[in-house]
Amino acid sequence: MAKQEDQFKKVLSHAKEYGYVFQSSEIYDGLSAVYDYAQNGVELKKNIREYWWKAMVQMHENIVGIDASILMHPTTWKASGHVDAFNDPLIDNKDSKKRYRADVLVEDYCAKIEAKIDKEVAKAAKRFGETFNKEEFVSTNGRVLGYQEKINTILGRLAKSLENEDLADVKALIEELEIADPLTGSKNWTEVKQFNLMFGTQLGASADSSMQVYLRPETAQGIFVNFLNVQKTGRMKIPFGIAQTGKAFRNEIVARQFIFRMREFEQMEMQFFVKPGTQKEWYEKWKETRLKWHLSLGMGGDNYRFHDHEKLAHYADAAADIEFKFPFGFKELEGIHSRTDFDLKAHEEYSGKKLQYFDPEENKSYVPYVVETSIGLDRMFLAVFSNSLQEEELENGTTRTVLKLPAVLAPTKAAILPLVKKDGLPEIARKIVDDLKWDFNVSYDEKDAVGRRYRRQDAAGTPFCITVDHDTIENNTVTIRHRDTMEQKRVKIKELSDIIKQEVNIRSWLQKIEA
Amino acid sequence: MAKQEDQFKKVLSHAKEYGYVFQSSEIYDGLSAVYDYAQNGVELKKNIREYWWKAMVQMHENIVGIDASILMHPTTWKASGHVDAFNDPLIDNKDSKKRYRADVLVEDYCAKIEAKIDKEVAKAAKRFGETFNKEEFVSTNGRVLGYQEKINTILGRLAKSLENEDLADVKALIEELEIADPLTGSKNWTEVKQFNLMFGTQLGASADSSMQVYLRPETAQGIFVNFLNVQKTGRMKIPFGIAQTGKAFRNEIVARQFIFRMREFEQMEMQFFVKPGTQKEWYEKWKETRLKWHLSLGMGGDNYRFHDHEKLAHYADAAADIEFKFPFGFKELEGIHSRTDFDLKAHEEYSGKKLQYFDPEENKSYVPYVVETSIGLDRMFLAVFSNSLQEEELENGTTRTVLKLPAVLAPTKAAILPLVKKDGLPEIARKIVDDLKWDFNVSYDEKDAVGRRYRRQDAAGTPFCITVDHDTIENNTVTIRHRDTMEQKRVKIKELSDIIKQEVNIRSWLQKIEA
Repeated sequence: MAKQEDQFKKVLSHAKEYGYVFQSSEIYDGLSAVYDYAQNGVELKKNIREYWWKAMVQMHENIVGIDASILMHPTTWKASGHVDAFNDPLIDNKDSKKRYRADVLVEDYCAKIEAKIDKEVAKAAKRFGETFNKEEFVSTNGRVLGYQEKINTILGRLAKSLENEDLADVKALIEELEIADPLTGSKNWTEVKQFNLMFGTQLGASADSSMQVYLRPETAQGIFVNFLNVQKTGRMKIPFGIAQTGKAFRNEIVARQFIFRMREFEQMEMQFFVKPGTQKEWYEKWKETRLKWHLSLGMGGDNYRFHDHEKLAHYADAAADIEFKFPFGFKELEGIHSRTDFDLKAHEEYSGKKLQYFDPEENKSYVPYVVETSIGLDRMFLAVFSNSLQEEELENGTTRTVLKLPAVLAPTKAAILPLVKKDGLPEIARKIVDDLKWDFNVSYDEKDAVGRRYRRQDAAGTPFCITVDHDTIENNTVTIRHRDTMEQKRVKIKELSDIIKQEVNIRSWLQKIEA
Repeated sequence: MAKQEDQFKKVLSHAKEYGYVFQSSEIYDGLSAVYDYAQNGVELKKNIREYWWKAMVQMHENIVGIDASILMHPTTWKASGHVDAFNDPLIDNKDSKKRYRADVLVEDYCAKIEAKIDKEVAKAAKRFGETFNKEEFVSTNGRVLGYQEKINTILGRLAKSLENEDLADVKALIEELEIADPLTGSKNWTEVKQFNLMFGTQLGASADSSMQVYLRPETAQGIFVNFLNVQKTGRMKIPFGIAQTGKAFRNEIVARQFIFRMREFEQMEMQFFVKPGTQKEWYEKWKETRLKWHLSLGMGGDNYRFHDHEKLAHYADAAADIEFKFPFGFKELEGIHSRTDFDLKAHEEYSGKKLQYFDPEENKSYVPYVVETSIGLDRMFLAVFSNSLQEEELENGTTRTVLKLPAVLAPTKAAILPLVKKDGLPEIARKIVDDLKWDFNVSYDEKDAVGRRYRRQDAAGTPFCITVDHDTIENNTVTIRHRDTMEQKRVKIKELSDIIKQEVNIRSWLQKIEA
């Protein structure tokens, strides 16, 4: 755990130092749970977004995109259930005036019991050595069984109370467990209240003519309300998909873990409209396709796992997460949800308009079922960034920090370095920059010794360093150094473009998905 | 005028019919002055954004991007002046309950006098025929001089009252001129009040712990507050620029003209930081560079003009618009502003932090001056779309509707059409799709007669139609038809990719800027 936290701290400071992520409005001491993408971060984010868009929209004849607005008619959120049910149960401590999510307080309590189980397991493992069987121990040891039972009882009651909107019982549970304010130890709690997570604002001028609207808490509804317009004007035939990337906003009370959970974030979502009855098949297909997309980036299959939901949201008949191994453990990176016809039917009801597809093969109209793939762009950014940040022991005993971003996603593809700042080398280097910049993001760097420049580019994630030296004047060759292997090769200047293209072009990376 | 309105109506209906722009939340009868980009619109918008980004960021070694959040610390807007001064003077009609911008009512009144001048000029022009000299007539004709004087007096008083925040006098002016509610004719007005155009919302949970924040009304401030972090971590040397694209929000009372003035819109801005004293030179340079960017798209030099501002905003020492000939006349498309050190100094004052650059050449620190280029992405979309929509009389007497989008911006680069739906032609066409889709957005279309499919693709803006016919089976050739000329050529299938690439790749279009 200490090691994980340590690694996470390194991620945060590296993200700032190398121009990937800054705290929002830092000169005003920041805005909680809101971040800005800096000069390298914006390029990494753009490249991830584009890699997703190309894979989902450009490569699929039956998927098109849209870009719906953040402000939508407020009835949208009545129909989707967000106005009535997009709530967190909150509780205030009367002494500290601090506010908490009541369910998180209870879950944290259970996590402490879980830690006791882990301790027992560790002790036993040490005692029994190689003969230790964890599963058997957990299922037979009285103390562990007691802990487990306690957790089950507490979480069961919490789930039931929340489901029944019995907030008084959630408070009773907190009091029975004698849960204290983690900051002050006070057990002096208010009632538990539901708090809506949508940001509201007023559209129009004044009290009498203005309209309460919301910043969208998810992009999906922008797709649902446009479903029929897209289908008709795009002459789409089922099955077909509508994809979208864009900002969404949630007024999270407990926002933490850097860009993992922010109040302003970006989603990349695709809603796939299918014939009722075929949704299970498409759900499986999209689970598989989306995992392949992740694997194509070459960040290691062991870093991903599926988590199939047992408890389903009210609109879903199947749901799974693709979890990624973040510095703080396996967490949801993407969700694949079989959403049935819940959303379209709700919009039919609230708008009084038919949202049906006429199926020429079946010769009848129906409300399609929907399978959704939904990934957080900021989470994907964090997954790529944290996984790429590595420290390597070198043969000479030193260590180097290297950001092994997939080359297709790297902000700068190549840095062009004159070995020295004289003898005409800078001029040749600039000429190479001026040639390559038409096709790639490239940079020029002449400051400090070349070894130091290599390390700087390693840490910034640049896949190639191209060095211009005195031989270049003689024979028009340069050295090209690979970030990951640190290998250097001498190549002709005119070959550079093709060499780089081969490693960074989106086509060859996407082809790994099909393979 | 009638012709202009007619053309604008065609733009609106074409934008919907061909999947470019939909009204937001249309099934709920829409949200005023908010629009969604549909399946083709999203691609056109993406392509414009990318064309700007490549030209500004990728091609300039000394310009980097960022992506700052929409929600910022509220003191940002205190410092920028938006909290106190980003207002419109509004007036309500007590009878109709309609709300108007008081200044617009007065300006509309003056526009009517202006129309009288135009009428006198037209009459005189007819009377004098070829010998008519407009300038001379206007400067000597008593009636015209009287009209002009009246306009000057009214607008002069309005400007002064607004500058002095003397809203009572603005109301007095409206009453003296006997301006009536344009809808009802009523002259029963309320007081004039200032109304802030920023959307506000609450960050955090409850009244006691929450914070009033705003949706950013412009993207520029996100660049200013990050200026020093970017300069330091990016090791930037003056002169350098920071570019950004992103959403901004203004609670416009009079929002109209489709996507020209929206409540939610997207800006593409670049702030260029320079040494004090050099700003005029950079201002001229950026005016020229930005106009070249527009001209590179080949939409006709006559459609652009500069409008140099005589009256400057409080922060500017020079400002000009690049105006474009929209269907409703020449209007601002982009602004180039020499903003001095106003913003950075204001943020220094409000944050208590130094925002200075250490200039190694001068060996001293200073607050840089800023030259800004600011273009509305939605306006650029409207400029491109409306200018491209044309009706052509053909030789056979019919007309065709064609959307002559610059090929580099077109949503779909090529449509692949099997001449008939049999004899293996669809299979070959699909194979071509599967080959080209790695590099371009392409589509497959087999429905209706091929002539009708050509017209459909013309109207959708697709630069190339590729037709697979029976000769294709024999010799692996297809016809490629150019949207604008309607010329068809027979080419080998394996040449297709290069032919398309030559016409659509961003590199060759950008090279027109340098030329």
